[in-house]
Amino acid sequence: MTASRPVLVVHGTDRPGIVAAVTRVLADFEANIVSLDQYSTDPVGGQFFQRTEFNVPEFLAIKPQLQAALVETVGEGLGLDWTLSDISVPKRVAILASLTDHNLLDLLWRQRRGEINMTVPMVVSNHTVVAEDVRGFGVPFFHVPSQGPDKSAAEAEILALLKGNVDLVVLARYMQILSDDFIGQVGVPVINIHHSFLPAFIGASPYRKAKERGVKLVGATAHYVTKDLDEGPIIEQDVVRVDHADTVEELTRKGAEVERQVLSRAVKWHCEDRIVRAGHQTIVF
Amino acid sequence: MTASRPVLVVHGTDRPGIVAAVTRVLADFEANIVSLDQYSTDPVGGQFFQRTEFNVPEFLAIKPQLQAALVETVGEGLGLDWTLSDISVPKRVAILASLTDHNLLDLLWRQRRGEINMTVPMVVSNHTVVAEDVRGFGVPFFHVPSQGPDKSAAEAEILALLKGNVDLVVLARYMQILSDDFIGQVGVPVINIHHSFLPAFIGASPYRKAKERGVKLVGATAHYVTKDLDEGPIIEQDVVRVDHADTVEELTRKGAEVERQVLSRAVKWHCEDRIVRAGHQTIVF
Amino acid sequence: MTASRPVLVVHGTDRPGIVAAVTRVLADFEANIVSLDQYSTDPVGGQFFQRTEFNVPEFLAIKPQLQAALVETVGEGLGLDWTLSDISVPKRVAILASLTDHNLLDLLWRQRRGEINMTVPMVVSNHTVVAEDVRGFGVPFFHVPSQGPDKSAAEAEILALLKGNVDLVVLARYMQILSDDFIGQVGVPVINIHHSFLPAFIGASPYRKAKERGVKLVGATAHYVTKDLDEGPIIEQDVVRVDHADTVEELTRKGAEVERQVLSRAVKWHCEDRIVRAGHQTIVF
Amino acid sequence: MTASRPVLVVHGTDRPGIVAAVTRVLADFEANIVSLDQYSTDPVGGQFFQRTEFNVPEFLAIKPQLQAALVETVGEGLGLDWTLSDISVPKRVAILASLTDHNLLDLLWRQRRGEINMTVPMVVSNHTVVAEDVRGFGVPFFHVPSQGPDKSAAEAEILALLKGNVDLVVLARYMQILSDDFIGQVGVPVINIHHSFLPAFIGASPYRKAKERGVKLVGATAHYVTKDLDEGPIIEQDVVRVDHADTVEELTRKGAEVERQVLSRAVKWHCEDRIVRAGHQTIVF
Repeated sequence: MTASRPVLVVHGTDRPGIVAAVTRVLADFEANIVSLDQYSTDPVGGQFFQRTEFNVPEFLAIKPQLQAALVETVGEGLGLDWTLSDISVPKRVAILASLTDHNLLDLLWRQRRGEINMTVPMVVSNHTVVAEDVRGFGVPFFHVPSQGPDKSAAEAEILALLKGNVDLVVLARYMQILSDDFIGQVGVPVINIHHSFLPAFIGASPYRKAKERGVKLVGATAHYVTKDLDEGPIIEQDVVRVDHADTVEELTRKGAEVERQVLSRAVKWHCEDRIVRAGHQTIVF
Repeated sequence: MTASRPVLVVHGTDRPGIVAAVTRVLADFEANIVSLDQYSTDPVGGQFFQRTEFNVPEFLAIKPQLQAALVETVGEGLGLDWTLSDISVPKRVAILASLTDHNLLDLLWRQRRGEINMTVPMVVSNHTVVAEDVRGFGVPFFHVPSQGPDKSAAEAEILALLKGNVDLVVLARYMQILSDDFIGQVGVPVINIHHSFLPAFIGASPYRKAKERGVKLVGATAHYVTKDLDEGPIIEQDVVRVDHADTVEELTRKGAEVERQVLSRAVKWHCEDRIVRAGHQTIVF
Repeated sequence: MTASRPVLVVHGTDRPGIVAAVTRVLADFEANIVSLDQYSTDPVGGQFFQRTEFNVPEFLAIKPQLQAALVETVGEGLGLDWTLSDISVPKRVAILASLTDHNLLDLLWRQRRGEINMTVPMVVSNHTVVAEDVRGFGVPFFHVPSQGPDKSAAEAEILALLKGNVDLVVLARYMQILSDDFIGQVGVPVINIHHSFLPAFIGASPYRKAKERGVKLVGATAHYVTKDLDEGPIIEQDVVRVDHADTVEELTRKGAEVERQVLSRAVKWHCEDRIVRAGHQTIVF
Repeated sequence: MTASRPVLVVHGTDRPGIVAAVTRVLADFEANIVSLDQYSTDPVGGQFFQRTEFNVPEFLAIKPQLQAALVETVGEGLGLDWTLSDISVPKRVAILASLTDHNLLDLLWRQRRGEINMTVPMVVSNHTVVAEDVRGFGVPFFHVPSQGPDKSAAEAEILALLKGNVDLVVLARYMQILSDDFIGQVGVPVINIHHSFLPAFIGASPYRKAKERGVKLVGATAHYVTKDLDEGPIIEQDVVRVDHADTVEELTRKGAEVERQVLSRAVKWHCEDRIVRAGHQTIVF
């Protein structure tokens, strides 16, 4: 049996004494802090963020009392938001894909090798080309076609599949634009990989645009999906060097390498509860 | 006395036999090719680019005959553009600066260390704060104030200083926008450093915009200046990792490191005749 | 049918006129040069290296006459070594693996996506754990156990499998040390991935050694295998940032990412005939 | 007047409750935590490290009482080591240099621009070539020649200059090997920049060795100096890409760029009390 790895994330209005109060609660339960990261947006009067991973012999046994103590001290006492999770419990992640398989297969491999602590209860695609590969990993594959301008039926079908079954949705080069309704109803975070260094080359065909502009680096951006396309909070970005001799195809190939790294890091960090959303930005501990 | 380092750059419409014809001319003069880089935009019917650095015992003695042979074979015979230069002869580079000194001093220092093969006949600034440092390098400093919306008098004064004296103008964080007239009349290439990874964060205050967007990397771009602001052909770009805890000041400091590297590489490559402009893009050999 | 992509690699003692003579031969066959890279170790009296990719309408038809012309002009006339290949023809690559699957699967997947122009006629392993995955790619898998200190029987069996069937052998985390006899008899190049930035951490357990030394970067090195273990010519290297909090397991995971990138680049470049071995070093065009 | 920026660093044997106890002390003084980094080498029974930067209205006024509380609670109560400093107070840094000026001038510039919070009370060199540049920054320069095998007189002279005047010594390409006696007597930390990616290319002429080995990256390492040459705890490392065409001179130039970045980061982090030495390693918060 895997040992528990409890993580407490706290955020809200900063003031003196928060760390002391929060860690006092943990100390009262004989919890040993494994790592603590803290960030305040300002020395005085800013926003406070704290992630604490701790070790305690019988986490499941003490969890109800610990939660009650956090409600009292952190929630009611200090007026802060908090979440308590056990990152040894894998997150349930649905992957949405289209024709491009590289981000999808990369995530499935990393899951199988134990690099990302997640289960993948389903892959959903508007095409069937990846079905066999996905099922080869022992993962259910669902085909939800999406033709024509009205995506509402397809989105409803996807929502029905996801409902109650997943903790995170990953768009692994899912080339359909999700409606505001979908985003509003999905009920779990959605991570997307955009194949450019945002905010450069927003929108379609970023590698073609990059070639035309003659850039010397191409990149990728993983971000949470919000109703503003390509404007969600950025989780991770990276770039790779290119030169004048690289064709659009070569840019695409080099960029795909970066897309895999960036998306896998973002999903891994999310599954370890390292990311706190703060308005249009992310704090990554 | 420094040995000559002749460089021949050829470009134009591609066809079979160009490299053979060009290198035959060099071989007829007993020139030994030190390095040859070639690029065609397409296997058939594209644009042809070639840079050849060669060694020949008495370059100055044979130069007139070599030029005549290039006129005949490459220019008239093949209908291609060519330039023959000696990169052991330092380019004369004027640096325009404002209040920020780090790019300016970095270039002067690299010149002094022999990293960039250039002379700096003048530094021109609309402020005087850098005057003493510049003169400490033995470089003339000219103060050309630039106040109010009409820059034409200041620009005319700068053009008069530059005229005939320089082979390149470098804008080392020169915060004035140069007019189309200036660009049209300056008669030599102008390189600018933009403090973002173009085309992200075009315009003013890119580090502040980067902070607001929550990016995880900041960068810099060196480009030739054209009449379209921030749209000139990109020479070099690079980035550095940042995180949520970095303030705008810290982004500026980390970005300044990248600005120095990127601008110094661009100037160095230009001074070694490694860059060919091709429309909105550059070929960097 | 795929268009031919002929590549001519020439190397030997430098002198004036080589590029002209070599490209004259190509021009006589109406070949258009797509890219030409050239390097000389010294302006006078060094070693000469040239890689030329060219386009010619009917390569297979003219190949015998072209070879004859190269023999006459380049081989006999200039006394240089040359090889003429068609990189549109995939190289036949055998992969040797052990228990670790990530480099192996990464190569198979890149082959399937068309990123590396190779066929994989066989995977050979001293374990069977990867058999099913390999066969899922439609690639034959051969199990050659290797127990005890005497590897000669196992090596003979591998040599028999390889003989005549492959153009390259890739050791994808094959944890057995190959004997000098094997290296002498295999008859094709062998590329290995070493999980450190050579020459740091030569030998076994580099990530554990890296942790103990407290390094801030870990890396990987792809090199040709010679009789001197970990001393063969380096093809490619890269690194990734780590910190004090990374355990040996985390170093291994981060390093694996770099191993995949570095090994896949090395194999790709080899399959495109971009690498020339020069003593203990490589020229990578 | 600059606002105080107090930093508390705590380390010792880990156990539950340390963070709570330490931050309780701070909270009792109405201190607001600006950033807190914590690391334990093991979830149970490891070593504990914590760096806390906090804000308190009148730091100098409460400092004696805070120190007394830390002695009682952290030192005597928990048996942990702690240091309390004010990083708004610049560290006094002596720089030792030889003929190479680039690391030296880079540090002086960064100091002048306010990038590194230090003063430089002296530069000491066994040569005089940098004297004028150093004094141009308003920094005293002392020439201490060092000829012949016996360095004891020169070292004694340097120790006399340093004694009581500095908080840190930086070897900015100081090419003399310091004796064990010097290291034992200097009484402040000493940071060195080594021009290779340690542990690769230990000892002299690393760029020449790198060229001979044919590596594809060169790097630099900043480390604390201990009695074991090139074996002190590593603070920071970085690399830059090179290729076969780079001469030893070009490797040296590219490497120098990395040396400046690596050394300046190490000195900056030291001056911000971000580094904790732990045996042969460093924790960098």
